Amino acid sequence: MRIAVDGYGGDNAPVEVVKGVLAALQEDSSLEILLTGKAEELFALAGKHSRLFIKDAREVISCEETPTVAVRTKKDSSLVVALDAVKDGEADGLVSAGSTGAVLIGATLKIGRVKGVERPALAPALPTVTGGNVILCDCGANVDCRPTYLVGFARMAVAYQKGVFGVGNPRVGLLNNGAEETKGNAFSRECFSLLKEAADINFVGNVEARDILSGDVDVVVADGFDGNVALKSAEGTANAVFSLLKKGILSGGLGAKLGALLLKPVFKGLKRTLDYNEHGGAAFLGLKKPVVKAHGSSKAKSICGAILQVRDMVAGGVSERLSEAFQK
Amino acid sequence: MRIAVDGYGGDNAPVEVVKGVLAALQEDSSLEILLTGKAEELFALAGKHSRLFIKDAREVISCEETPTVAVRTKKDSSLVVALDAVKDGEADGLVSAGSTGAVLIGATLKIGRVKGVERPALAPALPTVTGGNVILCDCGANVDCRPTYLVGFARMAVAYQKGVFGVGNPRVGLLNNGAEETKGNAFSRECFSLLKEAADINFVGNVEARDILSGDVDVVVADGFDGNVALKSAEGTANAVFSLLKKGILSGGLGAKLGALLLKPVFKGLKRTLDYNEHGGAAFLGLKKPVVKAHGSSKAKSICGAILQVRDMVAGGVSERLSEAFQK
Repeated sequence: MRIAVDGYGGDNAPVEVVKGVLAALQEDSSLEILLTGKAEELFALAGKHSRLFIKDAREVISCEETPTVAVRTKKDSSLVVALDAVKDGEADGLVSAGSTGAVLIGATLKIGRVKGVERPALAPALPTVTGGNVILCDCGANVDCRPTYLVGFARMAVAYQKGVFGVGNPRVGLLNNGAEETKGNAFSRECFSLLKEAADINFVGNVEARDILSGDVDVVVADGFDGNVALKSAEGTANAVFSLLKKGILSGGLGAKLGALLLKPVFKGLKRTLDYNEHGGAAFLGLKKPVVKAHGSSKAKSICGAILQVRDMVAGGVSERLSEAFQK
Repeated sequence: MRIAVDGYGGDNAPVEVVKGVLAALQEDSSLEILLTGKAEELFALAGKHSRLFIKDAREVISCEETPTVAVRTKKDSSLVVALDAVKDGEADGLVSAGSTGAVLIGATLKIGRVKGVERPALAPALPTVTGGNVILCDCGANVDCRPTYLVGFARMAVAYQKGVFGVGNPRVGLLNNGAEETKGNAFSRECFSLLKEAADINFVGNVEARDILSGDVDVVVADGFDGNVALKSAEGTANAVFSLLKKGILSGGLGAKLGALLLKPVFKGLKRTLDYNEHGGAAFLGLKKPVVKAHGSSKAKSICGAILQVRDMVAGGVSERLSEAFQK
C-alpha cells in the first residue's frame, strides 16, 4: 500500500510532515509513502529510506488563496501533485494538512466522487465518554445542504464506522435542537423524515448537541454549518475548561499545586483523549480513494496518525463499502 | 419591586421553588415576590413572610403539553396566573422553570413584545475564560430565522449587557464557521452584511464556535437552531470532560486520588463557573417586562439566582433600553 502525503501542507510543513512520515514508515513496515514538495529540501530532511518516494513539486498553496483558483492554476503545487499521484494510481490515498478548501475542492475534482454520492463530507471521529467514538458528518464541507445530502452523509459515515472501527450496525442520529420527532427547524424535520424512510440506515432519531459524545450513537449527521458549530463549540469548551482549571490551580495555594502535580498523568491522558487531532484528522468521505485532512497546526504525531488512518481506510475498504451502499 | 414566580414550574417544583424564593427574599430586603400555585401547599411550604404574596392557581402546565394549547386553555395554571400578574402591573418581571415553549409563547402573548422587536429571543449569559460573560442570543426560541431577526437579537443583547453587566459599548460577533467575512452559508453571509450596515451596533465580525467563550466579544448572535447547537455542545463537552476526569482519577492509583482530593475546591469552583444555570437562567429578551427561564432541573440556588437576575434586569432598565434601541 502506498499513501501520498502533501509535504508542504500545514503550518509546520515540511519539518513536522517529514517527521510524521518517518514515524509512520517505522510504525508499519509494509507501508510506502509518496511525499510531494521541493525534492532537495525533503531529501535533506528525510534522508534515504527504501519505502519513501519523493516527487518534486515547486509550488505551495496557502490558506489565503481562493481554493478553486489555487487548485486550477498551481499545477506544480505539493497538494496537486499528490492528488495527481492518487488519481493516476501511484498512491491509494492521501493526507494533507494544507488549506481545507483546496484539499476538499482538489480531491473532489481530481480523485472524483463515488457514483451516487451527491456531496462528499468531512467526518472527524470524536471520542465518546464510553470509550468508543462517534463520526460527526458533515463538519464544514457543505454549508448549504439539501435534506437528501444528509442521507448520503449517513451512508458514508456508516461505511467508515464499519470499515475502520468494525461497528456492525452503526446507530445513526440527526443533530437537532431537541430529542422529540417534532423538534427542529424546517430543514431538520425534512431530514428526519428522509432518514426514517431510508431502509438501509439504522436511524435512531434526533440527537441534541449535548449528547453527541454520550456513546449512544455511532454516527451523527448534520448540515456542515451546524456540524462545524457543534465541533468547534466542543473544542472551545474543552480549551476553556483546561484554561480555567490552570487558573484555579495557580491561584489555589500549595495544596492545589501538589494536587495538580499528582494528577498530571490523568490530565495528560484526558487532553490526549479529547484532542481528536492527535489521533489523525478528519476523513473526507465520498471519494473514490480515502483522503484525510489533518489539522493545519499538525505536528509529527498527528501527521503519523493521519497516515495510519488512511491506511486503515484503505485496508477496511471504506471507499468500496461506500460505493456498494450507494449502488443499492 | 415585585417579581412573579411560577411556583409549579420545573422538575423540583414546588419545594425547590419555594426555597429559592425564600433565599431571594433573604438576600434582598427590598424585594417582594408574588408566588403562584396551589395556595395551601405553598403556604405550608413557605410559612408566613411579610414580603411574600401567594396567588392561587389550581392547574400546572407540563412539558409534554403543546405550548400554544396549554397557554390558551389552562387559564388557572401557575404560569398563566403569574403572567397575568405581570401583564396587569402586579409584578415587574417573571421567573419560571417550567416548559420552555409555554413560557416563551405565554410571555409573548401576555406581556407583549417591545415595539419594533420582530422576535423575542433566549439569551443565556455564559462565563468567559477572561472572567466576564458573553450573551449568546438566540439559543432556541427561533429556529427558522430571517437575517433581519439577528440584527434585532444584537440590539436586545446589547441592551442586556449594558443594563445588567454595565458593559459600555458591547462588542457583537456573528456565529459562523470561519472568521473571514466571506465565510458562512447563504444565511450567515446575509446576516453579516446587515450587521455591518447597522450603525448602532458595534459589530466586530464573525466568531467561530470555538471562540464564543474567549472573552473577545460581549455578544454572539445566531439563528436559534445554531445557538442551541453551540450551547448544548459546550454543555455536553463540559460534562464529558468531568466524566472522563473522574474515570481517569478512579483508575489512576493512590497518587491520582490524593491529587483529586487536594484539587477538590478547584474542581468545585470550575464546575460552578461553567454551569451558567447555577447563576440563574436564560433571559427571554424583547418583551415589555423582564422574563427569565430557569432550567427545568433548577434547585433552590438557581431559582434564587434567576429571581435576582430579573431584579437586575428591572433595576438596569433592560426593557426600557431595549425599547429605546428599537425606536431609533
